[in-house]
Amino acid sequence: MKFLRLLGLVMIMMAASYPLNAENLSPANEWITLGTSAGPIPDAVRSQPANALVVNGNVYLADAGDGTAGRLASAGYSHKAVRAIFISHLHFDHTGGIPAILALRWQTSAREPITIYGPPGTRDTVEGIFAFMEYGALGAYGVPGQTPKPANYQVEVVELEDGSTIDTGDFTLTAVRNTHYSWPEGSDEWKKFQSFAFKFELPNSSIVYTGDTGPSGAVEKLAQNADLLVSEMMDIDKTVEAVSRANPNMPEKALANMRSHLTAHHVTPEQVGEMATRAKVKKLVATHLAPAMLESSEVDYYTKRVRSKFDGDFFIASDLDRF
Amino acid sequence: MKFLRLLGLVMIMMAASYPLNAENLSPANEWITLGTSAGPIPDAVRSQPANALVVNGNVYLADAGDGTAGRLASAGYSHKAVRAIFISHLHFDHTGGIPAILALRWQTSAREPITIYGPPGTRDTVEGIFAFMEYGALGAYGVPGQTPKPANYQVEVVELEDGSTIDTGDFTLTAVRNTHYSWPEGSDEWKKFQSFAFKFELPNSSIVYTGDTGPSGAVEKLAQNADLLVSEMMDIDKTVEAVSRANPNMPEKALANMRSHLTAHHVTPEQVGEMATRAKVKKLVATHLAPAMLESSEVDYYTKRVRSKFDGDFFIASDLDRF
Repeated sequence: MKFLRLLGLVMIMMAASYPLNAENLSPANEWITLGTSAGPIPDAVRSQPANALVVNGNVYLADAGDGTAGRLASAGYSHKAVRAIFISHLHFDHTGGIPAILALRWQTSAREPITIYGPPGTRDTVEGIFAFMEYGALGAYGVPGQTPKPANYQVEVVELEDGSTIDTGDFTLTAVRNTHYSWPEGSDEWKKFQSFAFKFELPNSSIVYTGDTGPSGAVEKLAQNADLLVSEMMDIDKTVEAVSRANPNMPEKALANMRSHLTAHHVTPEQVGEMATRAKVKKLVATHLAPAMLESSEVDYYTKRVRSKFDGDFFIASDLDRF
Repeated sequence: MKFLRLLGLVMIMMAASYPLNAENLSPANEWITLGTSAGPIPDAVRSQPANALVVNGNVYLADAGDGTAGRLASAGYSHKAVRAIFISHLHFDHTGGIPAILALRWQTSAREPITIYGPPGTRDTVEGIFAFMEYGALGAYGVPGQTPKPANYQVEVVELEDGSTIDTGDFTLTAVRNTHYSWPEGSDEWKKFQSFAFKFELPNSSIVYTGDTGPSGAVEKLAQNADLLVSEMMDIDKTVEAVSRANPNMPEKALANMRSHLTAHHVTPEQVGEMATRAKVKKLVATHLAPAMLESSEVDYYTKRVRSKFDGDFFIASDLDRF
């Protein structure tokens, strides 16, 4: 038993000796775009959707796609500094990195609690992660006599609804339903499957994160006068064109249907700019990018399209950018 | 319904237009070290343990820690080209990236089957991943009338035992129990929690991957005359020293216990060299590195330690190296 406690201690110390963990950084509050790809197709350069809001040295994630634990380390923060994860919706490009975060927390003997906030279904989703971890947790470090902690040790889940507010101590969070899903209002699916935008109200500033959304009056209202608006952005025409080029025999009706779906559930560069202008935000950052916008000519092209509708500060995010 | 089929088609096409997927590469067989950190603490530069064996354009993963889907994209391969994942043992630094791979396969309408091979407990682990995916899969793309595929669509699980052999069509795989765990032989735990080394026998070459292991006659025997030995490597002295330095009051006995644990379950640079020499392997690659060995002086130092025991080809792997 004593040996096992020591083994836990070792893991804690290994984490503590990590060169750039939260404790070693100045406590400047910042928003870090950890992964800026639109998902769900893994990209060679941009990681899957993930963001970190750092407040008073505490890390809060807004979505956490594949590889978030690694991206967080690259940003200089320990996975053990994560106090909460806010899931905008349960598409896997936004949740694929959560199992690794919870599992690596367990494996490195994290003792601080973490809370997973998200739409209805978040509890079932996180229970599934515990099931994924259960057998491995029982085996632990393969040492006779060990008494490993359960997979759900120090993990809480809170499901949100449209309009929910949460006070974390570092900020107040508000969740608002956006238009990433097309369920008829009031239907069973409309209740079961929700997609959110989030507002983070800090003592001296406010940040709004759209999540994945089409044009939405509710999101625009949420973003009114925000200091920072972090928005998804998709070149829908280019996506439709790429599919059409790759499939010259695709019927016109099929292409029209696809365009209709993408148009309802995502926003174009012009729509991003219009939303920011109408909401009078101070700074605008585009992430969740399709196409990848890796060439500077592409960045210039899309920047111009957004600036044609918004004349404030605007940036197309790269992975690990800080705002 | 037709619309949903089209939506699936769109996702397939988006994947098909991916610039560097397996189909676009020459079919040279290669071993790619996708993630070369020892885990479980996420590293700023080296990703968690993961490797890809590419044979005839098919991708086979040997372990898949956090971020493997992204690292695979960086290596030029689609997550949909993965035909199988071989899990050496169920520590989460080796499995944390599997949920994202299965979930992103589902989300991008992968149609080809994938098989997850691993020790006892792999079935429960993968069933947990399906539970993690279930709610999100039901919501799918948020379009009324959709009939989404179940989370386990085209995913098979095969549990291995010490000595199991599998013919994939591209190679024969042999799993052999290594010494990463210390259970008394024949105990319940010894049966329940197994850790493997793998041998991949291709028509014209053979590769042995140690997984995580201490010194092991069985692994050495498996590696006899291999063309490539991919071994874990840990500077145990340095790890113990780092802990001791960070905790000057830690009792001598505690440090001795820790050293004893690491010594039984991992291999030093000298032991890696000795294993390669005794097994007469043609080429030796060290991965699963602790410490991170990022400075060239560190690489030189550890290379010398290995070469003091092995005079064949030797490399300390970086992420995305190809052999």
